[in-house]
Amino acid sequence: MKTLRVAITGVGNVGSRIGGALEERAPEFARRFNADVRVVGVSASTEGLIDGSGISGERIAGRTDFVSGLTGQRFFDELEADVLIEAGPSNYVDGAPGLSHLEAALEGSMDVICVSKGALVVAGDDIYRRAAEAERQVRVSGAAASAMPTVDFLTYDLAGAQVTRFEALLTGTTTFVLDTMYRHGWDLDDAVAEAQESGIAEPQPEFDVDGWDTAAKLVVIARAVFNAGIPIESVPRQSVKNVNEEQIDCWKQHDIVPRLVGILELDDSDRVTASVQVKCYPKSHPFSLAEGSMKAVNVSTKRMGDYSLLGGASSLDATAAAAIKDLEHILTCRMSSSVQ
Amino acid sequence: MKTLRVAITGVGNVGSRIGGALEERAPEFARRFNADVRVVGVSASTEGLIDGSGISGERIAGRTDFVSGLTGQRFFDELEADVLIEAGPSNYVDGAPGLSHLEAALEGSMDVICVSKGALVVAGDDIYRRAAEAERQVRVSGAAASAMPTVDFLTYDLAGAQVTRFEALLTGTTTFVLDTMYRHGWDLDDAVAEAQESGIAEPQPEFDVDGWDTAAKLVVIARAVFNAGIPIESVPRQSVKNVNEEQIDCWKQHDIVPRLVGILELDDSDRVTASVQVKCYPKSHPFSLAEGSMKAVNVSTKRMGDYSLLGGASSLDATAAAAIKDLEHILTCRMSSSVQ
Repeated sequence: MKTLRVAITGVGNVGSRIGGALEERAPEFARRFNADVRVVGVSASTEGLIDGSGISGERIAGRTDFVSGLTGQRFFDELEADVLIEAGPSNYVDGAPGLSHLEAALEGSMDVICVSKGALVVAGDDIYRRAAEAERQVRVSGAAASAMPTVDFLTYDLAGAQVTRFEALLTGTTTFVLDTMYRHGWDLDDAVAEAQESGIAEPQPEFDVDGWDTAAKLVVIARAVFNAGIPIESVPRQSVKNVNEEQIDCWKQHDIVPRLVGILELDDSDRVTASVQVKCYPKSHPFSLAEGSMKAVNVSTKRMGDYSLLGGASSLDATAAAAIKDLEHILTCRMSSSVQ
Repeated sequence: MKTLRVAITGVGNVGSRIGGALEERAPEFARRFNADVRVVGVSASTEGLIDGSGISGERIAGRTDFVSGLTGQRFFDELEADVLIEAGPSNYVDGAPGLSHLEAALEGSMDVICVSKGALVVAGDDIYRRAAEAERQVRVSGAAASAMPTVDFLTYDLAGAQVTRFEALLTGTTTFVLDTMYRHGWDLDDAVAEAQESGIAEPQPEFDVDGWDTAAKLVVIARAVFNAGIPIESVPRQSVKNVNEEQIDCWKQHDIVPRLVGILELDDSDRVTASVQVKCYPKSHPFSLAEGSMKAVNVSTKRMGDYSLLGGASSLDATAAAAIKDLEHILTCRMSSSVQ
């Protein structure tokens, strides 16, 4: 039985769930791939743990035998692993600390799975170039739209279909806020406060409301699907803040529903442009059916027609499952390589 | 540059398009995979052609240098290829001739791509067992729901998500017929005649109307996704024929829309049951938005929530593109194996 050694950086809500989920799936991986998949290292912000014999989900959650200061470069110096799952906070200023984790992992010839988005947005070029040089994989399901498999759908299910347009509802908060304003006639502040009370919006909701979250996901998807490097600052963004009462009334009269969407469009020379827009959809459009934190995707292709996807409601468990899915795909590649 | 030699059996509407589509994609495969992907053999019902130097889409369509009698076992005796695309007619009685093509291909250590469904429905057990023994792949995108990527979505995008339920609109004819009866108050015969005139229904529409087409696709998907062998005769089927005027009136009163759907359900011990049902959906359900030959899918999972997919309208080009996608996935596996 071959061993696949996994490291996790960032052991907050998502990271610790990934540890537990991996432990739960290990017997299945052993049976199907004849592989012993185990966590051999975890690193939080100020402490970490390395144990080649395997670290249980309980030890990750309990943190009773974590070593103070076992983080950053020291963690990677001591770590021997095959795959890194980066699940720390997303920092859109300089990508730290995720970026240095990913760089160290690729330097150490690990495949990398990104759940955090910061490093991908700030330095996607750099990460993918290093991965190509090291002949290692970058998987980003958890960073692209968590439980909605955008990247897999576009690159695998529609391989060769020639995607020309991607339009998606990627941020649950803005759907909730726009729906609340539309249905109940509330103003933005009250709608945002309601979203926060319902646990949907973050304490700092501007990142979602102003379209930055959607733009960040577009940047991640554009890189993973089209190998296009789009600086996030260059993405034109409309904000939910600019939606006013008159617009809402007008949309109601026309029986159309507003959504904040991210759009990627390819021109004839396959150049990708991105934008974040407040758009309205008729009741018969799948996007108007998406509620709460559900994601929705529309894809146009040259060879296989058009598709709509609905689902992938946000949840920590679903995001963890998306990261483990990426790991399963890496496992499939590594196992099929080794038997030949 | 490595050569991937492709054979096509069945050179009707779909098969000849696959030849053309493959030729169109060859430069891309050369660039991305450093692989010379070429058609080296084609076999129609009474004649065929083998040419290791490659057969253009024009030669396949023109058939001017086909050799009479170069079919069946004689074709496979002379053929040297890596992948077979079986795109002949679907025969649900004994699977011939597709079944013997697939058996001969697996015997010759080829990967196989099924566009026709007959052999998979009649002898899926046999085909998958032979493929496992030969360590070769069976890909069935074109047979499962042509342009709607059901199998890829369930097995790849949702890997590890634990699918518990699959409900899908897999037959365009029945959507058209039910919609026509519902909207215009027409009776079944008139609605079917209209579907035939519009080129949607087959000359013998009973196969679709009675749910056999949906049942056949369920059998193919159940095997590919859940490794479950379901005899098609064992699938309970409701027929559109049993829909009467009183039902239509009642559904209209309740503002719900009828659809013929195929359902796969997993019980707690992961046993799969299949059924074909006439079910009604509210206007807010994605299935009520599916029109014409569009496919629609609902999936429930334990770990990643629920999903709806819409799209994949039937077209010969889209079905050809689905087969070429399967080929691309095989190419990815073969290339990643050879470089390690």
